[in-house]
Amino acid sequence: MRIRILVTGGTFDKEYDELSGRLFFKDTKVGDVLQRGRCRLDVVSETVMMVDSLELDDAGRARIVARARECEEQAVVITHGTDTMVQTARALAEATLRGKTIVLTGAMVPYAFGSSDGLFNLGSALSFVQVLPPGVYVAMNGQHFAWDCVRKNSATGCFEAV
Amino acid sequence: MRIRILVTGGTFDKEYDELSGRLFFKDTKVGDVLQRGRCRLDVVSETVMMVDSLELDDAGRARIVARARECEEQAVVITHGTDTMVQTARALAEATLRGKTIVLTGAMVPYAFGSSDGLFNLGSALSFVQVLPPGVYVAMNGQHFAWDCVRKNSATGCFEAV
Amino acid sequence: MRIRILVTGGTFDKEYDELSGRLFFKDTKVGDVLQRGRCRLDVVSETVMMVDSLELDDAGRARIVARARECEEQAVVITHGTDTMVQTARALAEATLRGKTIVLTGAMVPYAFGSSDGLFNLGSALSFVQVLPPGVYVAMNGQHFAWDCVRKNSATGCFEAV
Amino acid sequence: MRIRILVTGGTFDKEYDELSGRLFFKDTKVGDVLQRGRCRLDVVSETVMMVDSLELDDAGRARIVARARECEEQAVVITHGTDTMVQTARALAEATLRGKTIVLTGAMVPYAFGSSDGLFNLGSALSFVQVLPPGVYVAMNGQHFAWDCVRKNSATGCFEAV
Repeated sequence: MRIRILVTGGTFDKEYDELSGRLFFKDTKVGDVLQRGRCRLDVVSETVMMVDSLELDDAGRARIVARARECEEQAVVITHGTDTMVQTARALAEATLRGKTIVLTGAMVPYAFGSSDGLFNLGSALSFVQVLPPGVYVAMNGQHFAWDCVRKNSATGCFEAV
Repeated sequence: MRIRILVTGGTFDKEYDELSGRLFFKDTKVGDVLQRGRCRLDVVSETVMMVDSLELDDAGRARIVARARECEEQAVVITHGTDTMVQTARALAEATLRGKTIVLTGAMVPYAFGSSDGLFNLGSALSFVQVLPPGVYVAMNGQHFAWDCVRKNSATGCFEAV
Repeated sequence: MRIRILVTGGTFDKEYDELSGRLFFKDTKVGDVLQRGRCRLDVVSETVMMVDSLELDDAGRARIVARARECEEQAVVITHGTDTMVQTARALAEATLRGKTIVLTGAMVPYAFGSSDGLFNLGSALSFVQVLPPGVYVAMNGQHFAWDCVRKNSATGCFEAV
Repeated sequence: MRIRILVTGGTFDKEYDELSGRLFFKDTKVGDVLQRGRCRLDVVSETVMMVDSLELDDAGRARIVARARECEEQAVVITHGTDTMVQTARALAEATLRGKTIVLTGAMVPYAFGSSDGLFNLGSALSFVQVLPPGVYVAMNGQHFAWDCVRKNSATGCFEAV
């Protein structure tokens, strides 16, 4: 089973720009994460975009959905900002990508920052995608939710079942 | 679903002793790992022992099997040294712990060392244990294997399907 | 020789706020830095303020100068944002704190972010302050400059002799 | 002022070998350390050897002394194991390398292990070497000692003035 990782950015991939003192996107860290995890899965990683998910609009979501549909793989992990992860999950579910297991994940702290949950979440998502039945899921903090049973609690920053 | 983590040591939990220059065990790092991963699962962690798995004998394995049997939880993750992880998996399978899903995992580099795969592997194991059917499994490097379909390749340090 | 560290904030002490995605100040990391460096100097650390140095005004500078003057110690290290470090150095020099060796330092990347230069710069500043003759200095990137011979190159982010 | 770093190994440069579970030497980390510290000094680094200092004998010490003598630079930092750092310092002092300031430093925890004091100590040593008068010194934990006024306390692992 080959797994495709679609990279869309989010906090997971943010970096600190020394000159401006701001957070920004450079190259995705997913390769580094797979290396640190010594991941032996057959994985291909593709950067669709590198954006804060608050900046995702319908056109951006449509591109993500298109790539999820067109790629050969039946198992797809999508790294994504947490703020609108559930919206993108809905767009994917509505596209009815028959037979595909799609798991969205992200991080609360950029991988570049050392104390990140990114490595844990990616290990989690890559595991869920291998064993969950076809459908669209959100995997964060070790938990997994069907796309229509989850929301992000913006006060706590956590994902909860609804 | 509550998950029980049985800690048995292994490279995962080794630390560097500054005075002697050797690696040794102090307290398990599993709590730190769950904290870094911001794990929101209902997890209880129990230290059964802290040993290098090369030092595990039948009596030690029997204690691990006993705790896996006696604990209330149906979902059990066991952190373990990689050298004899498969042997312990076999002992657990032979104990026929009906209805329980047991996933063994570990790390190639101590969690204390920064560049560890421990966070990735624990995220992976905690995910597999929620979804895999009852049985005994080894989860390393993102992969998962039924207990009787895996061996550790000592030349490469990796786990492979057999 | 006791060394006083006056903490004023700057990038050195910034942290990432998971909920807002912004950088902010909580508690100073100087204690953690001294612990990681296993610093055996007689050091007392005092938080004067926690600000981005772009927000320092004359009143803020006056408070830093006052603490540098009033403290018992003859050796003073000041952690400070890099943007206006030279201005604060000038204010200290103009205050003619006779007999005191004062070394300002900071970081280009927050200590909290793992790949920080903070540990290197603090080790450097704590060393310079023990040996340099009385006066006011800036110590960054291993270099040291008398207060009136340095400027920050905002294009490169580096300090240069003038 | 150009500074020469002579690398001799020690705990500073030890790494963890995943396959054997042992500590060993590969390539020096000094370049990584200088990069992380964003060191802007004019530094040239040379690996003389990569050994645990308990394995240093007179012949090995003689090679270190020879390189310290022959190199063009007047400012020399030597990374070294802490166990016999003082012995090497004595050998250098007895060689009477006129006009040279030589500072030995090391680490209690390998730089590769994340929680290392290596970055702090190297920042410290590179600073001392710029301002101390010619002579041989040991710089550890923020402190500095003339070569004949220091010993390593093997019970605590710390360097103390004698």
